[in-house]
Parts: sequence; structure tokens; C-alpha cells
Amino acid sequence: MKEKLNIIKIGGNVINDSTQLTSFLRNFATIKGLKILVHGGGRKATELAAKLQLEPKMIEGRRVTDEANLDVVTMVYAGLLNKNIVAQLQQNNCNALGLSGADGNVIKAHKRIVAAIDYGFAGDIDAVDSSVIQTFLESKLTPVFCAITHDKNGQLLNTNADTIAAEVAAALTADYEVILSYCFEKNGVLKDVNDDNSVIENMNADSYQILKNTGIIVEGMLPKLENCFYALNNGVAKIKIGNPEMILENGTNYTTITL
Amino acid sequence: MKEKLNIIKIGGNVINDSTQLTSFLRNFATIKGLKILVHGGGRKATELAAKLQLEPKMIEGRRVTDEANLDVVTMVYAGLLNKNIVAQLQQNNCNALGLSGADGNVIKAHKRIVAAIDYGFAGDIDAVDSSVIQTFLESKLTPVFCAITHDKNGQLLNTNADTIAAEVAAALTADYEVILSYCFEKNGVLKDVNDDNSVIENMNADSYQILKNTGIIVEGMLPKLENCFYALNNGVAKIKIGNPEMILENGTNYTTITL
Repeated sequence: MKEKLNIIKIGGNVINDSTQLTSFLRNFATIKGLKILVHGGGRKATELAAKLQLEPKMIEGRRVTDEANLDVVTMVYAGLLNKNIVAQLQQNNCNALGLSGADGNVIKAHKRIVAAIDYGFAGDIDAVDSSVIQTFLESKLTPVFCAITHDKNGQLLNTNADTIAAEVAAALTADYEVILSYCFEKNGVLKDVNDDNSVIENMNADSYQILKNTGIIVEGMLPKLENCFYALNNGVAKIKIGNPEMILENGTNYTTITL
Repeated sequence: MKEKLNIIKIGGNVINDSTQLTSFLRNFATIKGLKILVHGGGRKATELAAKLQLEPKMIEGRRVTDEANLDVVTMVYAGLLNKNIVAQLQQNNCNALGLSGADGNVIKAHKRIVAAIDYGFAGDIDAVDSSVIQTFLESKLTPVFCAITHDKNGQLLNTNADTIAAEVAAALTADYEVILSYCFEKNGVLKDVNDDNSVIENMNADSYQILKNTGIIVEGMLPKLENCFYALNNGVAKIKIGNPEMILENGTNYTTITL
């Protein structure tokens, strides 16, 4: 039987609110066995860009990462957030190792170009090197990924953290039984986006199609769920979506997704 | 016989000038065998602090790292510089792994307090975990250290990069034959600070004392040389100081220091 590996992605207020982050990290450190953390960027990068008076660039309503904004996200995600998270995990006796996709060449990506529109330094993932990650895990290190990758040609790229979590999870299924959790401030996938008590407790590929077709699952949740089914279709055993306290403390009020 | 390990620290214009940095990294990637890079901060952190209108804080003529400035150096050293250096090394097929002292708990430090003066978030090193660094080296990874450490209580600390290089070098002498090189824009330790051709080619503990007592070695170079002799007294085989091109391309015009 394969060894169990927990991969947890945090985003939203879990990153933005330092009290919530500290509480989450204390909890995360107590998870027994192998684990990996993936963190999104939160509000800090937007705040720094505003302080530096960088104008957000948009093409056809979509945000474009220009060079100045790439520097900002590299500083905030790979520097400020990643190193403070690692330091807090060390305080809680979790031997964390902060990583961008460039470190150890763990995540190679390419610059996104869709239908001749250049979205700037946004990266789509080509390959995850599971062997390097496995070396870290076997050395009792806990990888902590930020949402920065590279193209192996010297270029850093801003990459969606949900996608990083799904791709890293999928890559490690050959060697581990992977459970992937997406943690944020909501209690899970909701039937009514305004009612935090309307959690859909269980979902599979069939019920997802129905919920999507009937318009019950709304816009913002769709890309996250696409990542979930990508991961499940690539060997991930189970996915949990919800509030980190419920998920880490074995509560019940969250969404579990299987194929 | 112990395996050879090259530890190279870069600072000054080698970091500030992107053309010099790119050229250095291309050279560094070609070094055969085990290697480690340590990089200083350069001018970028000062520039970002100025853009954010942070006032430099001074106590008795010495710069103090307050919380806002710690965030700036964490963003620039551990984020912008470290990840761009790692990405460029990956481009040159050197499997680099960017590290702060918090990552893998490789460098533990404490907040500097001298004679009741609180210098802010400046760190003095307590311990280097050579076993984790050895794991990376044995996995064919090239550690790239930035000048940020932690105190194992969740606090990041700004730490002198020359000292990091010396302490990491000293910690690895039990397992490797360590050669430590300090690379910057000058050709080495100079007899006349205004004459770049006045390189002192060889120095040992005795000649250093004479050069120091006669005032030939000036102020700015003393802390660097104290780090050198600390490293040599702790088992480092040889130290080189000078221009990276000379040192990496086996030139002769640089300073070699032995005990």
C-alpha cells in the first residue's frame, strides 16, 4: 500500500488574515505523516503594486502580468509570504522548505499565449519533477510551494496556485496515496453562495455535471472544480474543499469530491 | 580524501549589474563538482525602500532593520534576487535550489542586541545544519543562499551575506574540502584602495596582522577578512577574494588567503 500524502492549498482570507494564517499553520504542523503546503498570493501583492503606483494592465477584461507586476508577485509570493510561512512552520517544529517552481526545477511552465493574446508573464504548467519532491519528503522536509514557476529559459512566471496544487498532487500519485485539500474561508462548495450552511457534502463527476448544468455551481468555483477533477482523473484519491479548521480537525462540514 | 566543495559569495556590482550577474551565473554553472552560491542584497533593497518612502533608521550611526525594512529585504533578497538567480542557473542547466536560513532550518540565528542597543531585525548566526545541506548536495542540487535567516521562533532576520558564506563553509568542512571565494568588482585585497592593480596575491594570518597594524588594509575590508580567518580557523582549506572572472576562470590576479 502506498504511503499517504496530504497536499493542502490555502488561499483567500486564510492568507490575508495573519491571525487565521498563524492558527492554520499551527494546525498544519500537527498533521501526521507526509505533507505539502501550496499557498496563493492573497491581497498583499495588490497592496504592494498600489503602493508602487503600478497601474493594473488589462486585455479584454483579463489581468496581464507585465514585468513590473511579475517583480511584485515574485517579491510577495516567493519572498514575503513564503519565507514568513516557512519561519512560522519551523517555529511549530515542522521542517518546512519553501519552493518556487524554479527551485530544483520542480515545476516547469510556459508563458500563456491564447489566440494571439499575450497575457504577459502568466505560466501554464508543462511538467512537475516528482523525483526531487520525493527526495525532500524522504528527507523529512515539508515542501511549501508559492505560485511562481519558471520556463527553464531564465524566465519566472506567475502561476495559479490551485493549478499548482492539482499538478503537484497528480505528479505524486505514482508514489503516494494523495489527498488534496483546498482551504479557504468558505465551508465548501455551496448550493447557495450566500448561505454558508448550504455545503454540498459529497460530489462526484456525475453530480458535478448536474450541478453545473443546472447553474447551482457558480462561475468563481468552476476553475477550482476543473482543477479538482483534473487531479482525480490523474490518480488523486480524494479532494476536500472547505474551511481549514473543519478539514484539519476532522470535522464533517466540508465538501468531499471523488470520481 | 574529502570531496571538494566550492562556496562562492557574490556581492557589490556582480549583483547590482544584471549583465555582470548573467555573465557570472553562466560561469558559475560550469564549475565542475559540488558548489554553493551565497548572494548579498545589492542596491535593489535600498531602491525599493526609497520607492516605498521608508525612512532609513539609524542608531548611533548604524543602520537598524525595522519591521518595514525587514519586509523589504525579505521580498528583495529571498524573492526577487534569489528566484531570478535560481531561474537563470536552471537556464544554464545548474539544478539550483534557493534557500533562506528558515528553509530546512539550515541557518538559525538570534536577534542582535549589543550593549542594550536593539539593532532591529538583524541576525547573528547560532547554527548551520550541515546535514540538510549535505542532503541537497548529494541529490545533485546547488544551494543558493540569500542573506535572510530565522530564529526558530517564527522571526525572519536580516543577516550579513559574508558571514553566512563563512559559517556555511565552516559547517561543511567536516565532510568536504571547502574552498570559499568572495567575488565582487575589485581584483582582490588591495595595497592601495585606489589602484586596482595593487592586489595582494597571498595572505596568511601573520601577514594579515602586519597589513592591519600598518594601516594598509582599510576599514571596509576588515569585517570581510575577519570572516575569512574565522572560516580558515574552522577548517576551510583556502579562501579567494577578487573579481569573479579571474577566480572562476583560473586567472591569477586575485588574493588567496590561507592560515
